[in-house]
Parts: sequence; C-alpha cells; structure tokens
Amino acid sequence: MAAMDAVLAKIDENRDAALGRLFELLRIPSISTDPAYADACESAARFLADELSGLGFKSSVRATKGRPMVLAHAKATRRDVPHVLFYGHYDVQPVDPRSLWNTDPFAPHVTEVDGVKAIVARGASDDKGQLMTFVEACRAFMETGGLPCDVSILFEGEEETGSPSLPAFLAENKAELKADLALVCDTGMWDRETPSITTMLRGLVLEEIVVTAANRDLHSGMYGGAATNPIHLVARIIADLHDAEGRITLPGFYDGVEELPRDVADQWKALPFDDSDFLGQVGLSVPAGEQDRSVLEKIWARPTCDVNGIWGGYTGSGSKTVLPSKASAKVSFRLVGKQNPAKIAEAFRGFVRERLPSDCQVEFISHGGSPALALPFSSEALNRAKRALQAEWDKEPVMAGSGGSIPIVGSFKQDLKMDTLMIGFALDDDRIHSPNEKYDLASFQKGARSWARVLNALAL
Amino acid sequence: MAAMDAVLAKIDENRDAALGRLFELLRIPSISTDPAYADACESAARFLADELSGLGFKSSVRATKGRPMVLAHAKATRRDVPHVLFYGHYDVQPVDPRSLWNTDPFAPHVTEVDGVKAIVARGASDDKGQLMTFVEACRAFMETGGLPCDVSILFEGEEETGSPSLPAFLAENKAELKADLALVCDTGMWDRETPSITTMLRGLVLEEIVVTAANRDLHSGMYGGAATNPIHLVARIIADLHDAEGRITLPGFYDGVEELPRDVADQWKALPFDDSDFLGQVGLSVPAGEQDRSVLEKIWARPTCDVNGIWGGYTGSGSKTVLPSKASAKVSFRLVGKQNPAKIAEAFRGFVRERLPSDCQVEFISHGGSPALALPFSSEALNRAKRALQAEWDKEPVMAGSGGSIPIVGSFKQDLKMDTLMIGFALDDDRIHSPNEKYDLASFQKGARSWARVLNALAL
Repeated sequence: MAAMDAVLAKIDENRDAALGRLFELLRIPSISTDPAYADACESAARFLADELSGLGFKSSVRATKGRPMVLAHAKATRRDVPHVLFYGHYDVQPVDPRSLWNTDPFAPHVTEVDGVKAIVARGASDDKGQLMTFVEACRAFMETGGLPCDVSILFEGEEETGSPSLPAFLAENKAELKADLALVCDTGMWDRETPSITTMLRGLVLEEIVVTAANRDLHSGMYGGAATNPIHLVARIIADLHDAEGRITLPGFYDGVEELPRDVADQWKALPFDDSDFLGQVGLSVPAGEQDRSVLEKIWARPTCDVNGIWGGYTGSGSKTVLPSKASAKVSFRLVGKQNPAKIAEAFRGFVRERLPSDCQVEFISHGGSPALALPFSSEALNRAKRALQAEWDKEPVMAGSGGSIPIVGSFKQDLKMDTLMIGFALDDDRIHSPNEKYDLASFQKGARSWARVLNALAL
Repeated sequence: MAAMDAVLAKIDENRDAALGRLFELLRIPSISTDPAYADACESAARFLADELSGLGFKSSVRATKGRPMVLAHAKATRRDVPHVLFYGHYDVQPVDPRSLWNTDPFAPHVTEVDGVKAIVARGASDDKGQLMTFVEACRAFMETGGLPCDVSILFEGEEETGSPSLPAFLAENKAELKADLALVCDTGMWDRETPSITTMLRGLVLEEIVVTAANRDLHSGMYGGAATNPIHLVARIIADLHDAEGRITLPGFYDGVEELPRDVADQWKALPFDDSDFLGQVGLSVPAGEQDRSVLEKIWARPTCDVNGIWGGYTGSGSKTVLPSKASAKVSFRLVGKQNPAKIAEAFRGFVRERLPSDCQVEFISHGGSPALALPFSSEALNRAKRALQAEWDKEPVMAGSGGSIPIVGSFKQDLKMDTLMIGFALDDDRIHSPNEKYDLASFQKGARSWARVLNALAL
C-alpha cells in the first residue's frame, strides 16, 4: 500500500489547487435546458477536455445535436487490469428563482453552512464537484506513477434535460465506450460520516401536456360558465392521478413493481432514519403518498408521480378575468422494478385523453423515459468498493436505493451491457436543483481520496 | 308628441354636424393608461365641457389625482320632473398593435365595414360614439325648447384603467351627483336591428391563493412520494370546486340565486341565439358548466367559477424534476341575484383550508368583490324606456343580462343609492379594445334618437 499512501498524500497536497480548478468550472453557467447558455456548455466541455489532456489523457470534445460530450482515455501502468468508464455531467439546472440565492450562483466560494465548510454554487454538488473528485484522484495517480486501471472518462452536457443526444452517441461509439465496469458519481452519502453505494435507481417518465380549449383567450364574463376552461381540465387530470390512499390510478401502473427482498428490507429498517426528521428538515410533518409505506421505502423503492410544473392564464400581479385558451403541466413518474416506461407514458396519455371533452385538444411532449436499475448484491466490484470506502471513512457503507434516476446507468446496462458502480459524496442537504446549492468541502476532499482507494481496489 | 317629433327632426337635421363633432372628439388620443397622453385626456375633457357649456349646461372640468372628470348640469323647462345622471367615459384603450390598424386610429372616417356604414377610430364605440348619442339628444332638446328632465352628466377619463379616482370623487361630490336614476351607455344592442336594455350585471369575487408545502423547492427524486406537492393540492381544490354536473360545490354558494321570472325566461328562450354558433366562434362545441342550463342563461343569469390563472414549479422549456414549495391560482366567481361577495370569499377560503394537510399553509389575496346588480323588472323607468326604444326601433327591446361587470353601476347603487338604466348601441362586432374599432353610423344616429325618446318617456 505504499503506492496508495503516496497517492493519498498527493491528493492532500493538491487540495488548494484542486479547489481552484473546481471553482473555474463552477464559474461557467452551463445550464443545458436554456439555449441561451449553449456557449457556456461548450466552454465547460472544453475546460474539462483541456484538464484531462493536461493529465495525460487522450481527450476530445465531441459534437452532438445538443451539448457536446467530452471523452478521454488513459492506460494503466500495468496490463491486464480492469478497464473502467467513469461518467459525470458538466451541465447544471437553471437557477430560478434567482432572488432566493444569497450570492451569485456562478460565483463559487467556500463558506460555513450550518457550521460546516461548504462550496456554494450552482452545480457544486450536482455534478461538477462530484465529477472533479474523480479527476483529482486520477491526477494524483498520474503525478505519482500512473493509473491502476485503464480509465475512460465520459462527461455529458445534457443530463439535466434527459440526455437527448446520449443514446445516439453511445450507439455510434460503442467500441470506444465499452469497459468492464462503469463508475458513476451522481449519488450521495448516507450522512456526513457514512459513505454509501447506490445499488438501486428509480426510473423516470417525463411527460408534458398542453391542453387547448377555445381557439383564443376569452373574457370570463362573456364566456365563463359556458366555455370550457382548460385549467379546470388540467386540474381534474392531476387530481385524478392519485386516489385517497395516495396510490397512483393509471391503469397498469403497478405492473412490474416488486416488494423488497427480506434482507434489504431489514437493513433499511435498521438504518437510523427518522421520517419526522426527514420531512421536518423541509418544514413538513405529514407524509404524503402511499399511506402504508415508510418514507425510505417511498423514496427508494416505490413508484411515484409528481407534477413538476403547471401554468395557464394570467399569472401577473392583480387580476385579469381571462378564460385562457391553453393550460399546461409537466408530469413525471418515478419507476421501480420492471415497470415499463413506454407503457406508462402510453397509459398516461390515454388517461389524459379520456378526461377531455371532444372539442378540446391535447399536445403531448415527451421529455424522455428510462427504466429502474439495480446492481446485484453479489457483485465482486461492489464488495471491493465497499471495503475501499470503509478504509477511507472507517464506517460500513450503506447499500442504498435512490429516489432519483440516472438515465446513463440504464443506457450502460442496455446498450453497453455494463453494470455500474454508483458512488458519490453529495449530502441530502446539498440543495441540488434549488437556490444556494452547496457541496461540503469534506465531500470534495475525502471524495477524491475515496475514488483513489476504489480505483486501487478494483485493480488488485 | 308634436314636441318629440320636432326633437327627432332636429336630430336628423343635425346629423352631419353631429358627426363632425364626434370626429373632433375622436381625433384626440385620450389614452388614459399611458402618461404620455395625459394632455390629450385634458383636451378631451375640455372639449366635452365646452360642448356642454355651449348647449347651456353649467359645466366644469374637475381635477383628480389622475385624469379629470367633466361634470355638467342643466334644468328641465318644467319643474317636478325626474333628475337623471348620465355617465360615460372619454378615455380610450391603447391602440397597439398599431400595425393591425388599416388606418390611423385617431383619423376617424366613415367607411363600409361588412357592407354597413361605420365610423372607424379608437373610441368610436367605446365610449366616445356612445356618449355623444346622449349629448346630441340633449342638443336637440335644447334647440327645440329645452330638456324634459333635469340632466346631470358625468364623463370620466379613467374607465379603461379601473377608475382609480372615481370612488373618492363620488364620495366628495355625493350631493351634486345624486339623482333619481343613472343612465349608462356602455352596453350594446342584441343585434343590428334589436335594441337592448341591460337589466342584470353579474357580480364578481376575485381571490388568489398561494399554497406552500415544503419550505423550499425539492428534488422530486429525493422527496417525491413522501413530501406534499402543492401543485397537487391546488389541482385537487380546483377539481373539487365543480361537481360532475357542472355545479359549484362551495357550501352555501347558491344562497341568494333566484330563478328567472317566467316572462324573462320565455323571452330568452325565444331569442335567436344559437349555442353552437356562440361556442363555434371560439372553436368549441361542447357546452361547459351547469348541464341543465342554456348558454345564454349561464352567461347572463347563473353564477360561475373560473380559474383565471395557475402557476407553480418549473414552467420553462424542457423538464425539471422539481417538487415545488409553492403553487398559486387566481380564482374568480361571477355572482347573480343576492349572492353575498363577502360570504362567498369566506366560503372559498374555508373550502381551501379544509383541503390542506396540517403542515401546509395558504395565503389568500383578495382582488376585490362586488355584488350582482339588477334593475327590478317591475321598475317604471325600465318599462318607459322599453316603450321608447320600441318606438324608435320598431322591435321589442331585449331585457338582457350581462356576464361582465360595470363597476360604476355598483358605485351608483352602493354610494348614491341610485338604480341605473343601461342602454347602449354598440354591437358585438365593434372590435372594442382591438384594432379597427368601429361604431355603426346607424348606432350613432338612431342612438341619439333613442335617447331623446327615453328622456322624454322618463319625464311623462
């Protein structure tokens, strides 16, 4: 382990410089959903490609129909070692509502958050801070003799918009991307002291509806009570999606949903997880959703449905007695087990159509879909990674589920027949997708050390 | 009726000059909402005050915090006749989009519109053409011996901006404004051949709700299925507001709603009103709302509820898997009969509160309320006006309802204890508030004759 010690010492030695590099990346407003920031996405991709070239990777920025990919490769010092493909994304969520940020979302800085030093910026945790933990681990290996595994790195710029260019890119670059194992860093720790490996990911179906009633906005005094109000239709559709017990009412929705294996259920029950604390942190106390399930089960292992956005009519200040022509909603479903995304999207569309009068129209816009995924608990890579994390954190890692989906993991499984080891150092209070996003300085620094240990363990 | 004949003959004789006077007023761009046109509003007020002085009225321009009022008084030749207060407004809507006007909005001219001679200009119908019908009727009386009633005239310059100065002006000039009956000309005909008296105006309750669940926006993957989604709550509230038969479910909502008198119901049934045409014009074919009511009844005489705006979560392009902290809606109720706006606002607030989990909050914002108004069908003034209009148009006037509200009529009732007789000669296709606004030449000329007959009838 002498080599390992040198690598870890190098990471510690590089700390300040590493933070400077991360800040440089965080200053780039690479919001993928808004075309106004396309140039920023290009800059972020270029920055990463240059960083990796500087380390000795053969790196390139690859154009897509959307935001570019960064792809890089480097060989280990030894032959016959595993080949890993590390994936991260350089794009970030929009910052609105901007007014709720205490500081400029793209002016990263370290500050104390609840008494702990943290890096504050959009993307600090999701996913720029996380992906840089791996880059810094690679740097330390490079600077102390070389990599223990063959390493390929793929950075995407469309993760926050459902990765529209990814399937074609994977299909066209299968040979170049195929490795023994994928590594993905878009996950979190159990808590500040306890690392975690995510072995189950929920899938996702993203649907948008635009319901049109009259062919123009009407005066509610002149037409109200006689002409259909599309806001009422959308509200009815949303209200009908859940029954009184919090179950989702789409026909066939629960097909393919399996109960947890007994041992996993027992591990989860033993975890120090307090439903009241979890909700209390965000100002809530009454659990929503399925009434007969624990909160951890709901967010890790049960399918859900949430409306992520709704709009229609007059939304300015004061009043306007308009009866709008259109109303819209963005609806997402989280999937588990063997639920089929395409079937669920189709069931949803039928459900909406059934609730429209014959003179109203609906436009459906798909924002993507992916099935749920799981890594077998018997996997050798999983067990090596467990031991490596235990060495760094001195605590047994939690075998976690994840409420969110990571579509790339599905693509790796389906298109490249690769399993994925998901390790990340985000915390629940990182406010990802929200104002004042942060990443603990310890997550960044011990994260890099963790990846060094994991890479080493995989190569033994 | 010799005197009446002379008055009508005088109106006919004055036709060209009357049109010239209206054109002079229409040339003044008295747009009240834009401070750049404040001087034009002053000019319009001054023009009208001078016109009325010229006729023998004691007239004055009264300053307010906004645009000035014109107030004028003239006595009848006889004593012990009714005193009427005529109300109109000299301000107009902005002209944009200017590019959709075929000619300069402030260069009035007569042209054929769909084969009918019409005056085209901003304000031709709303409300300068309408108010000048009354002024020309007064002129004809003055030039043939004198007025049959005591007449006061109030012209406002802020109707298109919500009449901000009016309440204070009414309060400060109660004694001067109080009359036996108010006359308002801001309404329309049933069709080109059929006059109409508007006897019912729906009231209005305007409520906004802001529902808060978690204290910040959440990631729907991390919290979805466990944390309450305020969009779901707002959708449930809206969906619950109507039952399957289109009736409004607020407790006590229909208190004070009366069925139409048989004769009025019969008149409405006999009107050539085609539900399919009415809805077809806006691209609809399936009537919404109460299933057992005709469209005309729904929009004139039934209370309704419409959501005028809704918003929450992510509403940009693409997707964002956010579980928002807040969701909002603007809800309006149209009232009829003796429905009490304050009670309905309170019932709505209770209805909303009942549907919130104990850990969620709601903020209520009132945007005002006003009761429905009706001129009793037994009113002597109404019956005299009916006969006067029938004599001019040779058709029985429609006793109409109106879906919209006219706030001044409410102020006259509440503050000055005056009923209002609403007669106007606008047509549905006058394009008020839109480009190429017009007023039929026949509306202008027969409108003046109609007012002469009505004034005469009220004094008999």
